[in-house]
Amino acid sequence: MILTAQRMITGDGTAILENQAVLVREGRIARIAPLAVLEAENADEPVVSFEDCTLLPGLIDMHVHLGNWGNRPGDYRNNDYMHAYVAASNARSVLKNGVTTIRDASTKNRMTASLRDAAQNGWVQGPLPRMITCGNGLCMTGGHGSEIPDGGEEVDGPWAIRQAIRRNFKNGCDWIKVLTSSRAHIPEFTQEELDAAVDECHRRGRKIAVHSGVIPTIQMCIDAGFDTIEHGTYMTVEQARQMKEKGLAWVPTITPYTRSARRMEERCKSQPTPANLAACRAYTAAAEAYKENFKKLFDTGVLVGAGTDLSLDEGDGAPVAGELAYMVAYGITPMQAMQVGTSNGARILGLQEETGLLKEGLAADLLIVRGDPSQRIEALAEVEAVYRDGVRAI
Amino acid sequence: MILTAQRMITGDGTAILENQAVLVREGRIARIAPLAVLEAENADEPVVSFEDCTLLPGLIDMHVHLGNWGNRPGDYRNNDYMHAYVAASNARSVLKNGVTTIRDASTKNRMTASLRDAAQNGWVQGPLPRMITCGNGLCMTGGHGSEIPDGGEEVDGPWAIRQAIRRNFKNGCDWIKVLTSSRAHIPEFTQEELDAAVDECHRRGRKIAVHSGVIPTIQMCIDAGFDTIEHGTYMTVEQARQMKEKGLAWVPTITPYTRSARRMEERCKSQPTPANLAACRAYTAAAEAYKENFKKLFDTGVLVGAGTDLSLDEGDGAPVAGELAYMVAYGITPMQAMQVGTSNGARILGLQEETGLLKEGLAADLLIVRGDPSQRIEALAEVEAVYRDGVRAI
Amino acid sequence: MILTAQRMITGDGTAILENQAVLVREGRIARIAPLAVLEAENADEPVVSFEDCTLLPGLIDMHVHLGNWGNRPGDYRNNDYMHAYVAASNARSVLKNGVTTIRDASTKNRMTASLRDAAQNGWVQGPLPRMITCGNGLCMTGGHGSEIPDGGEEVDGPWAIRQAIRRNFKNGCDWIKVLTSSRAHIPEFTQEELDAAVDECHRRGRKIAVHSGVIPTIQMCIDAGFDTIEHGTYMTVEQARQMKEKGLAWVPTITPYTRSARRMEERCKSQPTPANLAACRAYTAAAEAYKENFKKLFDTGVLVGAGTDLSLDEGDGAPVAGELAYMVAYGITPMQAMQVGTSNGARILGLQEETGLLKEGLAADLLIVRGDPSQRIEALAEVEAVYRDGVRAI
Amino acid sequence: MILTAQRMITGDGTAILENQAVLVREGRIARIAPLAVLEAENADEPVVSFEDCTLLPGLIDMHVHLGNWGNRPGDYRNNDYMHAYVAASNARSVLKNGVTTIRDASTKNRMTASLRDAAQNGWVQGPLPRMITCGNGLCMTGGHGSEIPDGGEEVDGPWAIRQAIRRNFKNGCDWIKVLTSSRAHIPEFTQEELDAAVDECHRRGRKIAVHSGVIPTIQMCIDAGFDTIEHGTYMTVEQARQMKEKGLAWVPTITPYTRSARRMEERCKSQPTPANLAACRAYTAAAEAYKENFKKLFDTGVLVGAGTDLSLDEGDGAPVAGELAYMVAYGITPMQAMQVGTSNGARILGLQEETGLLKEGLAADLLIVRGDPSQRIEALAEVEAVYRDGVRAI
Repeated sequence: MILTAQRMITGDGTAILENQAVLVREGRIARIAPLAVLEAENADEPVVSFEDCTLLPGLIDMHVHLGNWGNRPGDYRNNDYMHAYVAASNARSVLKNGVTTIRDASTKNRMTASLRDAAQNGWVQGPLPRMITCGNGLCMTGGHGSEIPDGGEEVDGPWAIRQAIRRNFKNGCDWIKVLTSSRAHIPEFTQEELDAAVDECHRRGRKIAVHSGVIPTIQMCIDAGFDTIEHGTYMTVEQARQMKEKGLAWVPTITPYTRSARRMEERCKSQPTPANLAACRAYTAAAEAYKENFKKLFDTGVLVGAGTDLSLDEGDGAPVAGELAYMVAYGITPMQAMQVGTSNGARILGLQEETGLLKEGLAADLLIVRGDPSQRIEALAEVEAVYRDGVRAI
Repeated sequence: MILTAQRMITGDGTAILENQAVLVREGRIARIAPLAVLEAENADEPVVSFEDCTLLPGLIDMHVHLGNWGNRPGDYRNNDYMHAYVAASNARSVLKNGVTTIRDASTKNRMTASLRDAAQNGWVQGPLPRMITCGNGLCMTGGHGSEIPDGGEEVDGPWAIRQAIRRNFKNGCDWIKVLTSSRAHIPEFTQEELDAAVDECHRRGRKIAVHSGVIPTIQMCIDAGFDTIEHGTYMTVEQARQMKEKGLAWVPTITPYTRSARRMEERCKSQPTPANLAACRAYTAAAEAYKENFKKLFDTGVLVGAGTDLSLDEGDGAPVAGELAYMVAYGITPMQAMQVGTSNGARILGLQEETGLLKEGLAADLLIVRGDPSQRIEALAEVEAVYRDGVRAI
Repeated sequence: MILTAQRMITGDGTAILENQAVLVREGRIARIAPLAVLEAENADEPVVSFEDCTLLPGLIDMHVHLGNWGNRPGDYRNNDYMHAYVAASNARSVLKNGVTTIRDASTKNRMTASLRDAAQNGWVQGPLPRMITCGNGLCMTGGHGSEIPDGGEEVDGPWAIRQAIRRNFKNGCDWIKVLTSSRAHIPEFTQEELDAAVDECHRRGRKIAVHSGVIPTIQMCIDAGFDTIEHGTYMTVEQARQMKEKGLAWVPTITPYTRSARRMEERCKSQPTPANLAACRAYTAAAEAYKENFKKLFDTGVLVGAGTDLSLDEGDGAPVAGELAYMVAYGITPMQAMQVGTSNGARILGLQEETGLLKEGLAADLLIVRGDPSQRIEALAEVEAVYRDGVRAI
Repeated sequence: MILTAQRMITGDGTAILENQAVLVREGRIARIAPLAVLEAENADEPVVSFEDCTLLPGLIDMHVHLGNWGNRPGDYRNNDYMHAYVAASNARSVLKNGVTTIRDASTKNRMTASLRDAAQNGWVQGPLPRMITCGNGLCMTGGHGSEIPDGGEEVDGPWAIRQAIRRNFKNGCDWIKVLTSSRAHIPEFTQEELDAAVDECHRRGRKIAVHSGVIPTIQMCIDAGFDTIEHGTYMTVEQARQMKEKGLAWVPTITPYTRSARRMEERCKSQPTPANLAACRAYTAAAEAYKENFKKLFDTGVLVGAGTDLSLDEGDGAPVAGELAYMVAYGITPMQAMQVGTSNGARILGLQEETGLLKEGLAADLLIVRGDPSQRIEALAEVEAVYRDGVRAI
């Protein structure tokens, strides 16, 4: 199969190819060359041509929760079987947004790992996105994550954390996710616990993410060496510089905070309870912080990935295009934003030889959108087609 | 959509329509008439024409176990999530055999009910067969079913049985399944327990099936009034006559006994242990009993349904065509056999107004096979196409 | 204390006293006589005079659920401690509607009994209504009641029911409540189970209520001899006659069905899902049945009590005045309605020597409303004052 | 009793005695001298003479699992009672291979200890081999051992390990066994955990073995000071030298890796799944590593014991003769190999004063084989007789 579009964006942040095409063989990008060349070399190969469209690598969402189903109608019975079907349905849905790789940033125990394994055995109908899973999120007793049904696992002390990490790996998880602050400025885990978590992963060649939003806990997490800091809402420029030096990455998740701020504002109109007003203030401040600081932090050179924190919330799963649009609105270029949403994600995940770029040899995880997102980032949401390992998914 | 084939078998045991076609509208059989008439009346309707083929109602398997996965490669992790994916995969697979309705004759608790509900909510990709579910099978402590992992639930006494039945219904099951004998001639449940089970279902307008293979327990089950007797391996002609009078149905399941006999013979060649030899003798005797008696029992007029007891065993799920081929080999006509595999099943399930016949107003659950199964029943296994509620599944 | 009002309604269904007053001593109605007489006899006694008002016995709500808290703001943590505080708050609130006695028709285990006992020990601030409690409602597995959080206890079989009844009494309950049908026409408990429930109560001198709405289960409950039939939505005239003969009482609960019908109609405008539409049809049919049949049933002479099924729902707990207004709208006189809401309740509860009438020797549970409810039943909702055991509560 | 054979090999690696005999008294080797001398001194003592045979000390298998029953016919019910009988049967079977002492390198909890104690009480029919038991193997959560049914106990953190060790000793175990790597190059336990395990044993005068196969974990185990390293598949010469210096011993277990390589090759012919192919590559590489390196490692002077890792696998339990034959094939002399299989084992176990040599005062644990294993090591498998504490077992 030969795919061609008016322009192709490779995902490296700079290259725009014109008059080129992609030859897909056995699910991989076999060759990139002018259409005429590919046609000449592969006479019998069918050509799919996307007019007025842009072809780029499939997007990567660094932060979703496939197991969430809060937005599902409530009148059916909740059990693990049902949860399994909802998760598979959620996974299929993210492809609609052009997202071909997701990192599940925590769900109940073995759920996402089971979905991944079942898919590999052919028991779940695809195509499905490539799934990297964090297992259940580890938080301290009473810490952020413990209040979410099925969300977190409470562990206390360095050895209990190591044990929980070992169990997550035993259960087939790829990454580990730790949560160590909510909206308060009080750290949750101690430094000793955070250090143990990172050591247990790194000594085994694995990576570890941490939910951390405020300055003191972000500092503790940088010191511990977490591979990605999730949210990092109030991160300082100095901290971003430290992260760059240590090779740590940042997944800001602007979308959920901005949406929550808007939703709470709406709710406070009819229900101005103290609790609602407090939540509104907190989310609004967070949304403002991203608006204020994102560009300054980005300019330090810290590696940034795109995470949406959403699972089909408000009807659309994994809206990476929207997350990138926020980034552009806050100061970076569309080309930079698309690099964040493609090759940056692959680098963070260690999947550079698999996905995230238009490059010969990589998987044919491809997104075709209408219009030119290098001029107008919103075009990224106008999905025309999605390929996963060379199979058309949308 | 208009479907036409060289011949159509309505499923009533006698009618063969030639030069006719079926108009499908909104998933139902809207009209049956000569192709020319339908084309004239519905000018814009696309026509799908199956040459040298026979069109008949989708088959009904009265006895499967979607949750079994004994035949799956063992090197993956067993949990409820994984089980859910395997069950959905199994459900999709039976359509390949032209089976559009199944009754799940027991699986672990709420599994099949969850699959059905998830499918109705659109969380499982279809098409899937119409699923009637029995919940977990009820057996006495130590009775047949208790040794099967996840298979049965042990209950003792009439009130414990009623309670378990109530729980199964609460969990969304449609039918109830009781097991009351294995290969020994010793009854398992007492008459009082069997009576209570039937009463609890019938007083609530529900139906109940029973696994029973030998003469004394079959008699107890007839006396209790179970709606279907599953297996009934050693049923007598006198008992079949009683069943006809009381309006009870028989699901013989020739296939699993005959296959097991063959498999045990094979195994005894290399492992002639006492246990293997005994199992081989038992299965061979059962297979012989079906061969000997099936025609005589059928001729009493007892309502017979087709059940395969298989879930993807030996690579093919729900091989109803094979079950019907055994029946033809043992003496009935192909037309009678197809009635068993279609409208008889619908009658037993109380789904006469839904499926089981080529009849205007019923669901467009349709099977198209190559050749003429009214002449050669084996043609029923040569599936060309399958429609479920008018959607092409194969 | 001497209380006087323009008119006094005794609660016996006929008597209206004018120019009379009530002498309250030690919480009891010590004497009823013309004000002048009482003043002469009790020179130092303070007089409270209610102009343009009507004084009558405090109302009796036969069917509330103090433990419900569906209408409470959701952002606090649910546990038994919290539940206890909510129930006490609910109990205090019903006094605002002039209700001085309630029968709690099921809450979680020992909750209402604990509230009653704590109040008797002075650990809960009063005044509180007189509370008769049914403990947790007994339903079959999967029966109505099992789906309500903290609502029901699933029991199956006559001996399990007797055991649950014994436990409820051990836990300090006064009555027993059984639930045996939802909106379907299928009976839930068997006759044997219902008979056992009634026998276990009556042999111990206790009374028992039953939730039953449709004809077949109402008949089973009449045959069993339940002291009160709750709801009885589709009761026939013949059944009401049987109840009169057997001395059984009916608590129709028009309010919740009529409100639910209205609420579901409203909801269906924005969310016309199949489930919502079905619920709307069911509630509307029930509301219509009360409108159609209430007068005919009442005229059989069956003893009728007033039950609202509400616990602070829609902002007002135990709206007995509203329930009585429906009865008047459906054909009985205001005087009859007030008898239903006062002395009838006391008779059903066996509290004739305690409350329900203006009668010397009874508790000074008194309601003073503005206007004349014998002319306009709505006046019953215009509460001016409420006394509980002679203590002013409102 | 006087035993004589054509030649006697003492087990010290060099001595071959000819024309000598052994006087057995009360289960011990009372005296070794020329037959004529012994006969003269003990006129009434019966003489058992083994023509064309070699007499040597009973063999010692440093690594078996008596509780494994993977090779048992499957059709009986698994419980602890059944497990006990299987273990006793396994223990008796190893004597057939001339093995009179075994170290059980982990079984479920107290199983082997119970067998040993029951045997000492005379409740198990003998003769049985001398049994040294390690209790359940300690692994990290998800580590090697956790996937084996009944095999391992998951412990995490230094204090949890110490506690598990204390419990094993309380339960009557002799040694402790830790597992810390599978076939990956990633260490499982941390150094802190390994150090704690060794310290907890040594401070109590006990010994501790460790399953470790790859270079990084072998180094960690040497640093911690484990008394024996089991498998040590990829051990370097430098590491063997360190072990010699620290007085640590090596139990290579060539047999199971070589057999598994052969078995997986066979399986891949019919089932070349990715999982099977990967397992085949891993076992083949391991088998090759032993072939390559065994002689070089042996030549460092590290103390080597013979372990088979087998429990009746492939029909023969504890095939020490085969393990020694591999060693000879890989470069050492038959006399060295027999020293490995006898006195080396006794030294490692601290049983030098009990068994492992033909030496006056030691237990009469004797093996008589046909032919001359000092010339042809395979003769060691041709068992003519076995004595355990002077009692003929075979």
